[in-house]
Amino acid sequence: MLDCGLLNERAITERLRRLVTIPPSSALVAGIGDDCAIYRPRGSADDLLFTTDLFIEGTHFLRDTHKPADVARKALVRSLSDIAAMGGEPRFCLASVCLPEWATDRWTTDFFEALASLAARHHAILAGGDLARGVGFACDVTLCGAVPRGAALLRNGARVGHEIYVSGALGGSALGLATRKGKAWKRHLNPEPRLALGRFLREKLRASAAIDISDGLSLDLTRVCLASGTAADIVAPPQFAESRKQFASLEQALHGGEEYELLFFVRQGTSVPAQFEGLRLTRIGIAAQGPAGEVRIDGQPLKPLGFDHFTHTKELQQGNL
Amino acid sequence: MLDCGLLNERAITERLRRLVTIPPSSALVAGIGDDCAIYRPRGSADDLLFTTDLFIEGTHFLRDTHKPADVARKALVRSLSDIAAMGGEPRFCLASVCLPEWATDRWTTDFFEALASLAARHHAILAGGDLARGVGFACDVTLCGAVPRGAALLRNGARVGHEIYVSGALGGSALGLATRKGKAWKRHLNPEPRLALGRFLREKLRASAAIDISDGLSLDLTRVCLASGTAADIVAPPQFAESRKQFASLEQALHGGEEYELLFFVRQGTSVPAQFEGLRLTRIGIAAQGPAGEVRIDGQPLKPLGFDHFTHTKELQQGNL
Repeated sequence: MLDCGLLNERAITERLRRLVTIPPSSALVAGIGDDCAIYRPRGSADDLLFTTDLFIEGTHFLRDTHKPADVARKALVRSLSDIAAMGGEPRFCLASVCLPEWATDRWTTDFFEALASLAARHHAILAGGDLARGVGFACDVTLCGAVPRGAALLRNGARVGHEIYVSGALGGSALGLATRKGKAWKRHLNPEPRLALGRFLREKLRASAAIDISDGLSLDLTRVCLASGTAADIVAPPQFAESRKQFASLEQALHGGEEYELLFFVRQGTSVPAQFEGLRLTRIGIAAQGPAGEVRIDGQPLKPLGFDHFTHTKELQQGNL
Repeated sequence: MLDCGLLNERAITERLRRLVTIPPSSALVAGIGDDCAIYRPRGSADDLLFTTDLFIEGTHFLRDTHKPADVARKALVRSLSDIAAMGGEPRFCLASVCLPEWATDRWTTDFFEALASLAARHHAILAGGDLARGVGFACDVTLCGAVPRGAALLRNGARVGHEIYVSGALGGSALGLATRKGKAWKRHLNPEPRLALGRFLREKLRASAAIDISDGLSLDLTRVCLASGTAADIVAPPQFAESRKQFASLEQALHGGEEYELLFFVRQGTSVPAQFEGLRLTRIGIAAQGPAGEVRIDGQPLKPLGFDHFTHTKELQQGNL
């Protein structure tokens, strides 16, 4: 079911990509298929990055576990994290919000205050949007970021032999979703986009490829490998520690989504520090020969079991999130 | 109720505007409050325009009256029309789509094919987006357009004495919604964004202010007057003709939404042709002294009864749309 799910989402994306032809005269440098689209404005020293992410009641969050500020934070972090993965700096955002009957004035005000203030903290000024009424809450955040011309980190630059790293420790968000307490739940509700790290990867390490872990290491690594045309050999990534004794499971670390850590590739011989601003950077493997998109852990095939909207729907609508 | 509705939507927008401070160093030239946000890329000859518009099942359309291609067309025209109102040329778009269980593969494919092909026809290449599952269908289109630096048509440039014009004939979309037949229903389902006219207003007529009629002449004219700090005196606008005998009512022409015609202001003495590429341009009044936002028709106050999401919700959810 899950392999088919990956194909499902890939199938829609692939179909869309085939439907769209970017004319040679277009200032659009990259379209469907990476973390962001890239637009090169006439005469500008910067490339602009664009990403858009939905955050929907019942699909991405449940009203009874998420306060308005949590909803705002998580609606925005998805896009901020995409900009981080390309090494960009946020510039502005637009937010389209569908408000249901249950959203009181208080709730709405709290939501927008949190959204505007978090956006400002990351220099992603709230520049506009749309408001409508609807049955459930939905929010779509479009974020614009900038990188120097030609410098965006892409998914398709990994080559056989490049080393694979991950930031932080994984599985905390999935653990939090399961336990609803402690550091892990806090991490689930309050993820941090790795914007400074993304810039460091672009400017200093000159990473060959990067992606943010939004849908799970196994699925997001598969995406980079598919885009780059390589396989990957990895070992277990660092597992999130709730305490000295309690850790996220290996399953959670491999397949849990909403981590917003960065997964990146560097050329052999690149000197990667053990930490960046207190955040650990761990080598977990190497891009290898093999079928494009194949990921192996300790030599065994690793299925991409990460989160895919087109497989998990029913569980989610029964309140699994 | 409707005045209060106008205040409602204005109140949210005003609150948001107050929440957001654009730092002087920002490349954001205009934020919340016009048809589009304006971003000035470092070193570029162009300003970029950004607009985002929701299109939601049960709020903006009903599944049984709109085919997938109708949904795609109407989801996109809202944003294209915003770019037209600022005199811009579309460059690319992003589409976030929430697909419900009822959307079959066939429906989804038809929707995306129509979206991609209409976008391409207007040079608004589909450059990315997001996909998710949810209870109802929802689509958020973010569109980027371009104008030469500093040349965007704004809402706030009207001054007392400027002449007010409208393109086309009004009320057809509302008439179609009422009759569900004939030319009017076709017009409701298949509106045309006035992109060529928008450019003509910017390049040739140097219009002082413009807006697209998305929520009704009375409400959209009020918005320009509020932004510009003027009142307005108008006469009845041209009414849409279904046949030689049947016309949209004056009410429909004054308050009907989803027209996507352009309402624009020019300086006194500007020579405005009677037609632009077969589309009639009609002088309907003049920006006048008086309280900001006051609109008078034949000397009598005209209430802004256009469509406002925060007043009409209940009727809509009972299937009024």
